[in-house]
Amino acid sequence: MGTTPADAPLDKLFAAALLGAMAYGELSAFERLSADARYSPTLHDRAVLCRVAVAKFRHYEMVSARLAQLGVDVEDAMLPFQPSVDHFHERTRPSDWYESLAKAYVMDSVASDFYASVSPMLDEATRDMVAAIRASDEATPVLRGLLKASLAQDPRLASRLSLWTRRLLGEALTQAQRVGFDSVPADVVPALAEQHARRMVELGLTA
Amino acid sequence: MGTTPADAPLDKLFAAALLGAMAYGELSAFERLSADARYSPTLHDRAVLCRVAVAKFRHYEMVSARLAQLGVDVEDAMLPFQPSVDHFHERTRPSDWYESLAKAYVMDSVASDFYASVSPMLDEATRDMVAAIRASDEATPVLRGLLKASLAQDPRLASRLSLWTRRLLGEALTQAQRVGFDSVPADVVPALAEQHARRMVELGLTA
Repeated sequence: MGTTPADAPLDKLFAAALLGAMAYGELSAFERLSADARYSPTLHDRAVLCRVAVAKFRHYEMVSARLAQLGVDVEDAMLPFQPSVDHFHERTRPSDWYESLAKAYVMDSVASDFYASVSPMLDEATRDMVAAIRASDEATPVLRGLLKASLAQDPRLASRLSLWTRRLLGEALTQAQRVGFDSVPADVVPALAEQHARRMVELGLTA
Repeated sequence: MGTTPADAPLDKLFAAALLGAMAYGELSAFERLSADARYSPTLHDRAVLCRVAVAKFRHYEMVSARLAQLGVDVEDAMLPFQPSVDHFHERTRPSDWYESLAKAYVMDSVASDFYASVSPMLDEATRDMVAAIRASDEATPVLRGLLKASLAQDPRLASRLSLWTRRLLGEALTQAQRVGFDSVPADVVPALAEQHARRMVELGLTA
């Protein structure tokens, strides 16, 4: 199926790169979410967003543990991805609670789809770790529920969040291309965009 | 010893207030620490500070659970303390990684001493919860170790951090007085200051 054997050096290199990107993605998602939490309209909502952030840090630790098993230094693995991930976050600073929520939801679900789509290219232990992360992600339904409730309360929000989520996806794909995972199959990006569009429509946004 | 019985209404009120202050203190410590983590000189140090932050969120959840058991809404319990805690953080924004570390260490250890000193005034279940938080606090030795290593590498740091930690304690006590726990024994504050001074001297700072 075009997949290199799990013990090939190229394969280990790919896994280390993918895990490095995941690790830094999760670590910075943790930081941004916990910083964004201060926009929350109530202390209750604030704690919800913090809980989502903490889940991201747990993912970071799972990825780190796998990198350590592979004998790869987590910092070395993350560094190549720091500029593009930071750049993405700089270009997509939420201006309020609703944009924070939508960003968390979009990044959460797109990352999860991305992990699923590259999983077949990974060795078994790494694939198991990725599956464990996806299974443990309690954040997505919580975020979706909060977004739905917000949209129901304020219908004018839909057009603003439609633009915002479109921009988020555009920036995310641009940064992902900059990093350039050459081994990722060409049909992954359109598939991610399509799954994203379906979720947005489900929320009542225009994709 | 001057302690009201655990089931007195006054006692429950006191516990709810103390738990509210703790809950908001831990939640905002989580946020500030994870935001400060971005100052870290390396991604490794950044993850260390994030891990300390996550421990604070776990404490927040423990306190929340106890408030729920007491039938007190966590948000209601926290709200009275939000202005003074936020004000404290606004007045003590760390300007770099060393100040973040020192702030985390000072707040961590002073809070722990405070919890210990008010414990005898709490009902048994709340006291157990406070003891569990203090026992689970893996952050303090990590922070102390990092501070010691930083001070050993750069001896000029000591005078700057001496001033900084003195200011932190002053601001913390001012805010604590503003909140005004009238039921807290009068000797608690000087005892906290003394224990703090001892820890600073141990680090090689002037208290």
